[in-house]
Amino acid sequence: MALSAQYKDILDKAIQAIHARTFFAQYPEHPKAYGEDAATQGLEKYNSYLQHQFTELLQENPSSWIGEEESPFTGEKLGIKYPAFDIENIVIRAGRAMSSWRNVSIDDRAEVLVDSLERISKRFNEIAYATMHTTGQAFMMSFQASGPHANDRALEALAMGYEELNRFPSSVIWDKPMGKFNVVLQKQFKAVPKGVALIIGCSTFPIWNSVPGMYASLMTGNSIIVKPHPKAVLPIAIVVAEIQQALKAKGLDPLICQLAVDASDKLITKELCEHDVVKMIDYTGGSTFGDYVEGLKNKTVFTEKAGVNSVIIDSVEDLAPVVQNLAFAVSLYSGQMCTAPQNFFIPASGVKGKDTTHSYEEVVAALKDAIGGIANNPKMAAGTYGAIQNELTLKRVNSVKKLDAAILLDSQKVEHMEFPNARSISPIILELEAKDFGIYENELFGPIILFIKTKDTEESLRLAKEMSQKHGAITCAAYCTDESIAQKINDEMELAFTPVSLNLTGMIWVNQHAAFSDFHVTGGNPAGNASFTNPEYINKRFVWVGHRKV
Amino acid sequence: MALSAQYKDILDKAIQAIHARTFFAQYPEHPKAYGEDAATQGLEKYNSYLQHQFTELLQENPSSWIGEEESPFTGEKLGIKYPAFDIENIVIRAGRAMSSWRNVSIDDRAEVLVDSLERISKRFNEIAYATMHTTGQAFMMSFQASGPHANDRALEALAMGYEELNRFPSSVIWDKPMGKFNVVLQKQFKAVPKGVALIIGCSTFPIWNSVPGMYASLMTGNSIIVKPHPKAVLPIAIVVAEIQQALKAKGLDPLICQLAVDASDKLITKELCEHDVVKMIDYTGGSTFGDYVEGLKNKTVFTEKAGVNSVIIDSVEDLAPVVQNLAFAVSLYSGQMCTAPQNFFIPASGVKGKDTTHSYEEVVAALKDAIGGIANNPKMAAGTYGAIQNELTLKRVNSVKKLDAAILLDSQKVEHMEFPNARSISPIILELEAKDFGIYENELFGPIILFIKTKDTEESLRLAKEMSQKHGAITCAAYCTDESIAQKINDEMELAFTPVSLNLTGMIWVNQHAAFSDFHVTGGNPAGNASFTNPEYINKRFVWVGHRKV
Repeated sequence: MALSAQYKDILDKAIQAIHARTFFAQYPEHPKAYGEDAATQGLEKYNSYLQHQFTELLQENPSSWIGEEESPFTGEKLGIKYPAFDIENIVIRAGRAMSSWRNVSIDDRAEVLVDSLERISKRFNEIAYATMHTTGQAFMMSFQASGPHANDRALEALAMGYEELNRFPSSVIWDKPMGKFNVVLQKQFKAVPKGVALIIGCSTFPIWNSVPGMYASLMTGNSIIVKPHPKAVLPIAIVVAEIQQALKAKGLDPLICQLAVDASDKLITKELCEHDVVKMIDYTGGSTFGDYVEGLKNKTVFTEKAGVNSVIIDSVEDLAPVVQNLAFAVSLYSGQMCTAPQNFFIPASGVKGKDTTHSYEEVVAALKDAIGGIANNPKMAAGTYGAIQNELTLKRVNSVKKLDAAILLDSQKVEHMEFPNARSISPIILELEAKDFGIYENELFGPIILFIKTKDTEESLRLAKEMSQKHGAITCAAYCTDESIAQKINDEMELAFTPVSLNLTGMIWVNQHAAFSDFHVTGGNPAGNASFTNPEYINKRFVWVGHRKV
Repeated sequence: MALSAQYKDILDKAIQAIHARTFFAQYPEHPKAYGEDAATQGLEKYNSYLQHQFTELLQENPSSWIGEEESPFTGEKLGIKYPAFDIENIVIRAGRAMSSWRNVSIDDRAEVLVDSLERISKRFNEIAYATMHTTGQAFMMSFQASGPHANDRALEALAMGYEELNRFPSSVIWDKPMGKFNVVLQKQFKAVPKGVALIIGCSTFPIWNSVPGMYASLMTGNSIIVKPHPKAVLPIAIVVAEIQQALKAKGLDPLICQLAVDASDKLITKELCEHDVVKMIDYTGGSTFGDYVEGLKNKTVFTEKAGVNSVIIDSVEDLAPVVQNLAFAVSLYSGQMCTAPQNFFIPASGVKGKDTTHSYEEVVAALKDAIGGIANNPKMAAGTYGAIQNELTLKRVNSVKKLDAAILLDSQKVEHMEFPNARSISPIILELEAKDFGIYENELFGPIILFIKTKDTEESLRLAKEMSQKHGAITCAAYCTDESIAQKINDEMELAFTPVSLNLTGMIWVNQHAAFSDFHVTGGNPAGNASFTNPEYINKRFVWVGHRKV
C-alpha cells in the first residue's frame, strides 16, 4: 500500500485550504453533482433498509439485533435492526485492532481514510434520506449536512492530522560539537496514538458532528468505537460500514472502526466512557452528560455541549434584509442547530437605520412578521422547518407558554404536503426584559425565540457576553453599522471566546460554519471544550515520543 | 515598535531548529563564551544581594518583605528579602496588565520577549551563583541549567508560540460561488489568549522548569504570575526583573509578568490556583499537589510531577563504559533530577557481553564500583553531587536504610573543599527482587538507587513499562545490542509514552534533554500532562476565534 497520487492531491489541496481559510469544498454541495438519478436510487436504497436487519457492518457474532428509530416525518418506526454487542466484546476488539492500526504508516492510514470518504460520497443520497427520517431535517439540509459538508469536515480533520503527524522528522542525526569531539545521537520521533477512542453521536446531526472526531482519531492511529444516538443510527451506520469496507479492501482489520448501537432503555454510554481501555471521548449532546464526560479522570475529552446564542441588534443599513436573514436563521430546522440564535437583544431606545431610527416596537414587529411570514408560507415552511426530532422538544415549546412572559407569536402545527404526519411546528416568540435572565440563560433547544428588551447596545453586549461566559455560545450575530461599536462587540465577545458574525444578509446565515475556513465551536466557553478543526483538536490525540540511541 | 531584523533572525533560526530537531543552541553552554571576568563579576553581584532587599522588581507597594532561602553549600541563610503582595493585589494587577498585553501585536510581543532573553543572558553568571546557593547544584550545572539551557528552552517555547500564532491568516476574503452569484465574507482569525497564567516553580530547577511555561504563556498574550518555591526565589527573581525591564523599555506594563513570593508557613499557591481570574497553571513539583492542580475545574493545566525512571540492562558491547555512564547519570546532582534513573532492572541470568555473559553479580559489582568510585574520588564527588537541596531528602536516604532490603552501598557524607558545611552525601544502593514493587514503585527522590533482580529482560521490560504506566516516567535508559529486542523495548515503552535512550556511553547521559530536539516529559503518563515543547503546549494557551462580516 502507499498513498496514491490521486488521494495525495486531495490531501494537499485540503491542507492548503486549511491554511488559506478561503472558500474550498472537496465535495460539491449540489445533489445533482452526484448524478441525475442518484436521488431516486438513494430513496430506493433507503427504502430497502426499512424493516430489515442492517447487514453491512463487518462486525461478527452480535449478541442481539436492536433498533428503535422512527421518522419525525412519517411518525412510523423504521424497523431497522442493528447488530449489538457486549461492551467487553467491543472494547477488546477495539484494543486488538489498535495494535495493528497504530503501526500502519501515516501515508497508508491516509490512503485508507481518503478512500473511505470517496466511498461514502457515492452514498450521499441514501445517507440524506437516512438523515431526514431520523433527524427530521428537510431533504436538502440532510443531503448537505450529512453528505458533502460532513465529508469536507472529515477531510479537514484528516488533513490536519496528516500535517501534524508529519510536523517533525521521523529520524534525525543529532550532532553536538563539544570542543575536541562531537556527541552524536540517532533520534527517532514517533507520534504515538493515545488509545481507543469513543465517539458519542447526537440525534440531530448524527454524521456532521461525529466524523471530525472519528477521522481525527483514526488518522492519528487510534481505533474507534462509534456510539450513535439510538434514534439516529442509520446515517452513521452507513458511514461506519464504508470505513470498514475501505479498511478491508486494503487488508486491514475492519474492527479499527466499530459501531456500538444501544437502546434508550439500556444505554451503554457511561460504561464505555468509564472503561479503562477507552482513553479518548468525543461527545456531542446536552451539557449535563457533557459535564460528566469532561469530569472523567485520565481521559482525553472533546465536547460540544449546549449554549445560548445571541443576536445583538444595534444599527442597520436596511432593516428588511436583516429581519429576513434572522427569520430564516432561527427557522431553519426549527432551531435544532447548535448554531441557531436564541436570544435577541434589542435596545429599548431603538435601532439606528440609514435615515431614521427604528423604534424597539418597529424592530420587534418586523422580526415577528418575518418569522411569522415563513410559518404562513406553506411552500417555504415545510422545507425550512423540517420536523421536530424529539418529542421532548414539542413539550418544551408547550412548557415555555406557561412562563410568565408575553407570547409575541405562538407556535402552530405546520402542514407537510408530502408527510401529513410530520411532527412539524412553527417557532414561538416570547418577549422578555433584561431582568428575566432566569429564562433566557437556559438553552431552549428547538423553535423557541426570545426577544429581550435592553436599555441600549451596551447592555445587550454585556448580557450576550455574560451568557457566553456562563452558559456557553457557539455563535453571535450582530448588526451594527458603526465601526467602533462593531469593533467593541468583537472585542468583548472574544473575551467570551465567541465568534461574531456581523451584518449577515442574503444567502449566508449565522448558523453555517464552513469546513476549511470556520472553526466550529471555539472550545473556550462552556458550549464545548473542542473546536473543529484547530490544531489542538488533533494534537491531543497522540503523544510525541523521542527515542535516542548512540 | 516592530520585530527587529536581529531578533527576527533569532526566531527564524529557532523555528527552523524546532522543525529539524538536529543540534541547535542559541546560547552557548560554556561560561567563557560570556566573558573572561563574567564569573567573578557574577559572584560579586550575587554576594551583593545577600542580606539585602531585592529591589529590582518593578512591582510597587509591597505589603511586606519576606525571604527564607538558605544555601545547601554554606548552610547559611541568604538573608534576601523580596516584596510580597496580597493575592487580590497580584491578581488584579495581572488582569489589568493582560488587557493591554493581549492587544500587543504578535511581532511586538516577540520583540520584547527575545529582548528579555538577551538581557537575561548577560546575567547568566550571577544567576548561576543564585541557583547554586538555592538548589545545591554544583556551579557548572547551575550555570548551564539556569543559564543557556534554560534560555534555549524559553526561546524554544517562544518560537513555537510565534509559529502557532502565525499559523492562520489574520484576515481573508471568503468567496463562495453559489451558481448565479457569490457569497462573500470578510473573515478575521484571532488567537485569543486564555487568561491570567500562574507558573508554580520548584526548588531544584527554579528557572529551567519555569521559563518554558512563562514564555509560552507570554508569547500567546497572557499575563503571568510566577510563584517560586520559597527556598529558591533569587534565580527566577532576576529573570522576572529582566522581563519587567524589557517590557518597560518598550513602554509596556511591567506587571504583565509578576513575581509572587510566599513563605513556607503561609503558602499562597492554592489560593492563586483557585482564583477565578487565574485560567492557566504551569506546575512543576510533587505528584500530590500536581494531582490537585490537574483536578481543578475550568483551568488549563500543564504539569510535570514525579516519576520512576528505569534502566533496563539486557546486553552490552562493553560493560565498563556502560557502568561509567550510568554511575555518572545517577550521581549527577545526587539524583535530584526528574530525569535521573532510579530503578535498575538487571536479569538474574546475566547480561550478554561481546564474547561472554556477565553474571548478575558481576554487573551489580561493576555498577556498585563505578558508583562508589565517584564517591571515593574527592575531586569528582563534590562537583558531581553538588549539595542536597532539601533536608527531607537526607531524611529519605536515612529512612530507606530501615527498609527490609540489602544495602549494597551505603550513603556517606561527602567533603567539599570549598564549602565545609555543604549538605552533601553520596548515593545509597539497595538490592531488591522483582516482588518488592512496594518499594520500587515509589519515587525516592534524591541519591537513592535500586537494583532489581529480574528473571530476564522480558520481566525487566514488563516492570519498567508498568512503572511508567502506573507511576509515570520521564526517561528510560536501555542497554541492548540485539536489534529486535531493542525495538521491542522501544515499542513497549512507547505504549507507556516513555522515551528510550539506548546504549548511551561517553559524554551523553539519559538525564539530559536538549532544547529544540528532545521533548521533555511526553505528557502521556502520570509523570506529567505536558511536554516541552510540543505544539499542544502552546495551542492550549489560546483560542482561535473567527469573526465574519459581510
